[in-house]
Amino acid sequence: MKIEGKEYQAIWREKHTVQFIDQRELPHQVKMFAADSVDDVAFAIKDMVVRGAPAIGAAAVYGMALGAIDVDTTAKVLKATRPTAYDLFYAVDYMVNHIKQGDDPWEQADRYVEDIVDRCRRIGEHGASLLTDGMRILTHCNAGALATVDYGTALAPIRTAHHQKKQLFVYADETRPRCQGLLTAWELYQEGIPHALICDNAAGYYMSQGAIDLVIVGADRIAANGDFANKIGTYEKAVLAKENNIPFYVAAPVSTFDKSLESGKEIIIEERDEKECTHVQGTRVMPSWVQVKNPAFDVTPARFVTGYITENGVQTADAL
Amino acid sequence: MKIEGKEYQAIWREKHTVQFIDQRELPHQVKMFAADSVDDVAFAIKDMVVRGAPAIGAAAVYGMALGAIDVDTTAKVLKATRPTAYDLFYAVDYMVNHIKQGDDPWEQADRYVEDIVDRCRRIGEHGASLLTDGMRILTHCNAGALATVDYGTALAPIRTAHHQKKQLFVYADETRPRCQGLLTAWELYQEGIPHALICDNAAGYYMSQGAIDLVIVGADRIAANGDFANKIGTYEKAVLAKENNIPFYVAAPVSTFDKSLESGKEIIIEERDEKECTHVQGTRVMPSWVQVKNPAFDVTPARFVTGYITENGVQTADAL
Repeated sequence: MKIEGKEYQAIWREKHTVQFIDQRELPHQVKMFAADSVDDVAFAIKDMVVRGAPAIGAAAVYGMALGAIDVDTTAKVLKATRPTAYDLFYAVDYMVNHIKQGDDPWEQADRYVEDIVDRCRRIGEHGASLLTDGMRILTHCNAGALATVDYGTALAPIRTAHHQKKQLFVYADETRPRCQGLLTAWELYQEGIPHALICDNAAGYYMSQGAIDLVIVGADRIAANGDFANKIGTYEKAVLAKENNIPFYVAAPVSTFDKSLESGKEIIIEERDEKECTHVQGTRVMPSWVQVKNPAFDVTPARFVTGYITENGVQTADAL
Repeated sequence: MKIEGKEYQAIWREKHTVQFIDQRELPHQVKMFAADSVDDVAFAIKDMVVRGAPAIGAAAVYGMALGAIDVDTTAKVLKATRPTAYDLFYAVDYMVNHIKQGDDPWEQADRYVEDIVDRCRRIGEHGASLLTDGMRILTHCNAGALATVDYGTALAPIRTAHHQKKQLFVYADETRPRCQGLLTAWELYQEGIPHALICDNAAGYYMSQGAIDLVIVGADRIAANGDFANKIGTYEKAVLAKENNIPFYVAAPVSTFDKSLESGKEIIIEERDEKECTHVQGTRVMPSWVQVKNPAFDVTPARFVTGYITENGVQTADAL
């Protein structure tokens, strides 16, 4: 990913220190967050220094490397950070197996992270074949390089198509409460891809006006039948896309597929602190008497999904 | 409407001064805005000191009384303030006719405002018959007393059912960008009606979970076929309600029906300043490079509406 013209990754390591682009500060300032312990990594995941299912997986493998000396405790600490992103559990189990086999933890962690980047690059290539010149695309939340170490999932096809000189216009949902749409707008701005940030309420309006040709979102967990969990509001966009006959794609690496779940009904939805709604950039903007409910994810049934873009190609729910 | 236990109206007059509860300051503080000229009233409408179609109508009749000496110019100034709310045009034309007939402007304006209040009270009575004990209701934006002088349109049935001792729970959509959901939460808090504010993204989730039994919204303009304009995001909730088999009602006085429009396609949608998105309470919360699009309303086709609650009863689109 580009930041002021230079190439970066959302997460990398310098010897035994894990460096994160601190997403709590974006897009207002670019600051790094350095983690040298399991607790630092657990904090980074919990407090959303790092977010997005694949990036959480990358954080977790480095966390496991930092705590390889006590693999079971480390696995437990990291798995307790957030409940919805399947990549977290997948990544921890991957490291537990390798460490117990006697493999070098840092080498395995690097391999995992390089592999994520490579899978996202391939998601970009497969997805770009769906995008034609002049398309106007809606995305929700941030499933960009920040969420996946590099390239992104939902944003990877957009990046690749842009490099192929296709003219695109991206509508980025604001994505209340945490406004991760700003991260998407920031990534698009850094890449020079034309876009507009819109309130979540306006997506349906633009769909009904024929101003959106295709929707792509990421996923935090995909059940065996294709139902998937993603940022709250994704379900709304999926229903609206179907109503307006707009193709709706989910972009995710296979590590996001949780074959142990028959359907989306089994996915646990995280309720997060109401401060996410009542405060903006640390300042309370709603009176203290305001009662808030704040579910962080929703589940979209597979019947709303036109296709799943993975590193292996584009598949329908029936083909999963 | 109650404010700390005392009865208020959103707009009233003291001799030839029009008093508004300044909605730009709510719910953080209760401040009044006094208008003694046509320009003051025009400013109050344009800058959203007063908002909500029926309340804009009430502001307009008092504005016409203030400018009765030059009725045509006054009508032109007031009609230029905002394009979408039909009540504005209806109210100005009502006053033009009465003034030209030689009627007393202040008396006619009072009659218009009393009439609005009475119509909202009747909307409350008709609408309350749809609400049963234990119901969980979703509303979008603020179609409360603040938007209509008193009682409200969408909130009137909820108020009346609450006075009838029915136990209700109201989900109030935040309603980005201007967060009028906070005004709804504030009105419900003042009345002691149990409620929660939710992000606009979460409404679909609660519908899909079976947590919402009925949706009621207001309207800014209703075409002859029943298509209606309302706050941006209303269309999204209507589509989601249909998908989840949840009854969806529009509450509005007959003054919101614009029989000159065959369908919603003819309704003009206002694009408002992008500052509504980029700033919160006057403070910029998004970087200056962020590109924003900010449509203020959307149009919901009549096929999504279970019924229209007016002062004359509850009707389906077919019966209109």
